[in-house]
Order: sequence, then structure tokens, then C-alpha cells
Amino acid sequence: MNPVFSRRVPEGDNIERAVCERCGFVDYDNPKIVVGAVVTCGPRVLLCRRAIAPRKGLWTLPAGYMEHGETPEEGARRETYEEATADIVIEGLLAVYTIRRLGQVQLIYRARMEAGAFAPGPESEAVGLFAEDEIPWDAIAFPTVHWALAHARQPGGPFVNPPGGDESGPDAPPYTVTGA
Amino acid sequence: MNPVFSRRVPEGDNIERAVCERCGFVDYDNPKIVVGAVVTCGPRVLLCRRAIAPRKGLWTLPAGYMEHGETPEEGARRETYEEATADIVIEGLLAVYTIRRLGQVQLIYRARMEAGAFAPGPESEAVGLFAEDEIPWDAIAFPTVHWALAHARQPGGPFVNPPGGDESGPDAPPYTVTGA
Ligand SMILES: [Zn+2]
Ligand SMILES: [Zn+2]
Repeated sequence: MNPVFSRRVPEGDNIERAVCERCGFVDYDNPKIVVGAVVTCGPRVLLCRRAIAPRKGLWTLPAGYMEHGETPEEGARRETYEEATADIVIEGLLAVYTIRRLGQVQLIYRARMEAGAFAPGPESEAVGLFAEDEIPWDAIAFPTVHWALAHARQPGGPFVNPPGGDESGPDAPPYTVTGA
Repeated sequence: MNPVFSRRVPEGDNIERAVCERCGFVDYDNPKIVVGAVVTCGPRVLLCRRAIAPRKGLWTLPAGYMEHGETPEEGARRETYEEATADIVIEGLLAVYTIRRLGQVQLIYRARMEAGAFAPGPESEAVGLFAEDEIPWDAIAFPTVHWALAHARQPGGPFVNPPGGDESGPDAPPYTVTGA
């Protein structure tokens, strides 16, 4: 059994929403928050090779959906532990990226690992620490990973999408960041 | 007709979720994003007196739920226009507050009004510009408004909840920020 959604304006609202014809549930389709981190260990940065679709086999930052009951910083730490078995210290907010097409806001933090200990979690095939010239630039999973790695080399922030980095057009690649 | 939710772990997940018994819909209950602004016009700050529950008659910042398809900055501008009929220029991210109990992340921006033009929108009884010593401190709608007004007087940011400002306990006041 599944919900059957059709789009209409619920009573008292002024925007068309997905309403379930079976039970009347209104899906407000609010943007979801993805939390993640650019984690450094000395001069190296932590990347995870995806064990799951989409973009299986490509490299990404530890990131996933923020859960109810946690702060964004706690969520970024949790995701890094889940995907890379690494304990991190959050240093500050690096970037707020908007993926309009997916209704996502990504809060990406600067963080550091004090121990060099890490291991792939269930959603990662491999985890590694990479110096700038070792990063697998041709095998990065998502444009936002490129953005965050570039922003992390600059002081300051929080940064937003780079110019042209608005993926709401029809040619936009799939930016899905998984992780429940 | 309404959904009938019970809590269980959906297949393939590892966290208990609200699942509708009528149609199988899974409510992932992700945190929602509230966007708002501390808007200054010279030395004064823009506040709105709420025309609706909760906290009707008390003063708040322009803020409300971010919608799908907009950036947080666009959402803060939209909410300010809806609640105060004011055009603003976003200057930067002032704060990221987490209201755990409600599963809310509030992205509050620094902004300025260039024209002094404003008028109450449908959710406001009144709108005003207040110098520091004119702010109705005893009639502020939500603790986050106090936090944001205090943080806005300091340089830098983005700020997070002040020490002790974690309202997840049972004595927490209702922090609801409305606005669809
Ligand atoms: Zn339904
Ligand atoms: Zn249902």
C-alpha cells in the first residue's frame, strides 16, 4: 500500500501541495537539510568512495540528511562517523549550498581529525586522506564536493553556491546526497 | 479523512519513523528550515507584531518556513516582504539556531532596508523600526528573537544557540515560528 499524491492547494494555504488521495496527508515538501564536513588531518582531506548508488565508486565528503533532535554540527559528526568511522572536531560553518532542484540545503562544516583513525562504514567502499595533488579530481561524485574542496582552501565563509552553480536547470546532473 | 500514523522502523531503515496505517506513507520527519532576517534601517531594527497564534500581539523578526525552489536568502527576503512589505538586501548569515524540540534549524540573515517603506502583511498587526532603547523587550515573541538581536550587535558570525539556549528540555517554552 502506498500514498497516492495529487497536487492541490490545501484549505488555508496559498501554495499547491502534494495531498494524498487515500488519507488526506499534506506533504509540505519543505527543503531538507544535508549536513557534511570537509575534514582535514594536517595537510590532507578525508574522502569516502561511495559503495551505493547514485555515483557508486566515486569520491565524496561525509554527508547525509540531518535527523530530528540533533544540531547540524552533531549531524555532521554523526555522518562522518557512520561513513568513515572517524571522530571529528567541528571548527566552523564552511558553506551553505542550495540545490534547488532537490529542495536541499547543505550545511558543510570545516572540521579536523585529531587521530588519523578511520575505516569505511557501510555506505563507503573505501576511505582515504588525500593531499591536494592526490585528490582524485576526475572521480568526484558531486559538484558540491568540488565547491566545498575549493572553498575550504580559502579563509572565511560561510560560502554559498559559486557563480553558475545553480543546478535548477534541465541539464543539471543528479546531485542526490544519500544517507538517511 | 486524515493519515493515521504509528511509529515503526521502515524496511531498509534503522530509525523508527511515523508510518501511515492507511496508505503506507513514511514521514521521515526531517528538520525544517526557518529563514528570517534582522533588518536594519540606519540604527533601527525592523520588528513585526504577530497577528496570529502563537504569541499573538508579541514582537518578532520576519521569519518563516523556507519553501522548495528558493535559496535561504531568497526565503528570508520573501518572508520579510510577506510580513512587513519591505524590500531588503541580504548582507550575510548572522546565525544558525537549532530548536531540537521542534526539529527546526533557523537560518537568520543580517539585512538592510534601503527605503524606509514598510507595512503590515496579513500575519502582522503592526510593523515598526526600533532603536536599541525603543525595542519592546518585555513583549518579544520568542527567545530566538532575543538571541538574534543580541548577536546582531556583535561583529562576525554565524552564531549558534547561546549557552543554555537548548530548548530540548520539558520546560521549554513553545518556540513555534509560523509562516507557510
Ligand atoms: Zn496517504
Ligand atoms: Zn496515509
